[in-house]
Amino acid sequence: MTRVEVSALDPAVAARLKRNADGLVCAIAQQRGTGEVLMVAWMDDEALHRTLTTGRATYWSRSREEYWVKGDTSGNVQHVHEVRLDCDGDAVLVIVDQTGAACHTGERTCFDADVLLDARNGA
Amino acid sequence: MTRVEVSALDPAVAARLKRNADGLVCAIAQQRGTGEVLMVAWMDDEALHRTLTTGRATYWSRSREEYWVKGDTSGNVQHVHEVRLDCDGDAVLVIVDQTGAACHTGERTCFDADVLLDARNGA
Repeated sequence: MTRVEVSALDPAVAARLKRNADGLVCAIAQQRGTGEVLMVAWMDDEALHRTLTTGRATYWSRSREEYWVKGDTSGNVQHVHEVRLDCDGDAVLVIVDQTGAACHTGERTCFDADVLLDARNGA
Repeated sequence: MTRVEVSALDPAVAARLKRNADGLVCAIAQQRGTGEVLMVAWMDDEALHRTLTTGRATYWSRSREEYWVKGDTSGNVQHVHEVRLDCDGDAVLVIVDQTGAACHTGERTCFDADVLLDARNGA
């Protein structure tokens, strides 16, 4: 779907956002309970609005240039429990219940496969 | 310190990074054990190299345009335990032991103060 120019996002929230040059804030999805960091994606005002009001994590896909309701294609949905804005307004933490794999590769999280350092193992 | 043009970052790692237009990847700091998401910041190749080799989380400060060893000013250091690269190479997850507050406001995390949605409380 084409990008929404005027979002219904609460103006009081919109006023606190510090968007990048593309009008986006960084969104981190975290599993409720376990605390797993599942993935990082991006939201414009409308994606944040939908995430806050529909209960389904919704992102702006930079590659496909469309709204992306996580799980609509894969079935691996994210049910939203909490959303928190960071101190400088350029990132949101989205606490979700993730169905199945968060990563398009089939891994549980997008950070499972490529370990650059692990102090326990000397990786 | 001025930005390093040619980093000593392992070329095999550097080849997997997908940097933004400013040459940066997104870095999420997470507390070891509790799983708290502490903050979001940015790294260039050299900041990642230092994070991987010094045991201290090191970022590129976009506002100050300098390397920023977390805690050098505040004392609230981050000792690095794990570093993981995500599936598309544009974000790293840094598992740390955070001393004191991660946020410059004095809050434990940068996501503590501004709750946009809390399904438990209807916030």
